[in-house]
Amino acid sequence: MIRVNLVGTGNLGWNLAQALQDANGVELVQVVDRSERLKDLQGLNRIETLETMNPADICLLAVRDSDIAGLVPQLRQFDMMIAHCSGATPLSELDGLKRAGVWYPLQTFSKDLRAPLKNITVALESNDDDDLELLSGLALALHANPIRVDSAQRRVLHLSAVLVNNFVNHLFTLGKTELDQVGLSFDLLLPLIQETVRKASLNGPEDSQTGPAVRNDHETIQKHLDLLSDPKTRELYIQLTQSILQRHGKEL
Amino acid sequence: MIRVNLVGTGNLGWNLAQALQDANGVELVQVVDRSERLKDLQGLNRIETLETMNPADICLLAVRDSDIAGLVPQLRQFDMMIAHCSGATPLSELDGLKRAGVWYPLQTFSKDLRAPLKNITVALESNDDDDLELLSGLALALHANPIRVDSAQRRVLHLSAVLVNNFVNHLFTLGKTELDQVGLSFDLLLPLIQETVRKASLNGPEDSQTGPAVRNDHETIQKHLDLLSDPKTRELYIQLTQSILQRHGKEL
Repeated sequence: MIRVNLVGTGNLGWNLAQALQDANGVELVQVVDRSERLKDLQGLNRIETLETMNPADICLLAVRDSDIAGLVPQLRQFDMMIAHCSGATPLSELDGLKRAGVWYPLQTFSKDLRAPLKNITVALESNDDDDLELLSGLALALHANPIRVDSAQRRVLHLSAVLVNNFVNHLFTLGKTELDQVGLSFDLLLPLIQETVRKASLNGPEDSQTGPAVRNDHETIQKHLDLLSDPKTRELYIQLTQSILQRHGKEL
Repeated sequence: MIRVNLVGTGNLGWNLAQALQDANGVELVQVVDRSERLKDLQGLNRIETLETMNPADICLLAVRDSDIAGLVPQLRQFDMMIAHCSGATPLSELDGLKRAGVWYPLQTFSKDLRAPLKNITVALESNDDDDLELLSGLALALHANPIRVDSAQRRVLHLSAVLVNNFVNHLFTLGKTELDQVGLSFDLLLPLIQETVRKASLNGPEDSQTGPAVRNDHETIQKHLDLLSDPKTRELYIQLTQSILQRHGKEL
């Protein structure tokens, strides 16, 4: 049984609280929820402040990146493993703690829609092998795949996550915006989107590129630019097209 | 039984030839394959030139956009429905034919990896209701979803397909490139990518946006820019971030 405390009540905290409650082999001891943002979740042992935290094996910090370092003075008294969940924050921001680590779940989390933890990557960091094993055990209890990385690798992992999630979702939004203007539904695109993912996962994305840019089809590119009335979307189309041309060895 | 002739031997022709052969209620009569590019596909009745085409119900033109208009003089003699498969080409490029239409399958096609036709959107256009029914029947025989659109709507559908497939796949490529540099596998990103698609399909992409841009988290954005050594990828990161900020009402 891995006993866990959780600090943080944002999108990640909302998801982790429930995942930790549901997992076999995990006991969610306490959640620090001063703002009462998790009060709708049943069965949580919510507390107001870090100072009154009970002992546990791991304390997960699911807080904003900019708030991590500020918690260190309050956390110094504890003997438990304290791990932040940030992709972009070095382990060294927890310097001064007795036992510090990173437990970064590579997933996109929103409130009110539970994201699967199963099969996701959890990037771990710790200077102690036993602590690393403990962090790994927590990932496995959630059916996630732990990997050990250093802070530099994790930073790149986070950047890549932004490219394939944040930016990809934004392109979905732009696609939907165009369809809205002519009365067509975003749902029409879903099978194409699913095939895009399937192809990239089977053949790798480099070998899956299709479309006017990789074909060097200037006529179609120009037709698309003529359609795009928003200057920022137009500029984005040009930049992405140029980037594809650059990657695939052609010139605009 | 819908009898079909197929003209074109590229990625689309390679996929359609096999899908039409396999479909119940469809007879693939002939494939115009002068280049012998489909000669490895078993059971095709390949012919050299358009002039010797046998009668059929529909002739699908799976050729480059720029080659469509040039085929019209050779196709004038035929009484069958002749439909091009292009997203960006107006129906009017087939002016002069007895019966003309559009049968545009909204999918990404590569050679050597069969793409599903099932559940994809096929955008149809024709000035004749009976011909539209015929084109619709062909989509249904492939278990695809036919929709009637005009040329202007279809052009937007094609633009959106480029946004959510071509550009998204390129972002996958850029994500992979970053991971390659630190010895991590693209496969680590797949569960995140799958959740990105699931969220967008359930909640719509506007309500699914997460990440540093929508949070206005300049510190993380700067960390990512510091990591990006390729100037084009860096510029792309900035443009996409600005576009997210613009969409979600924040300023960079």
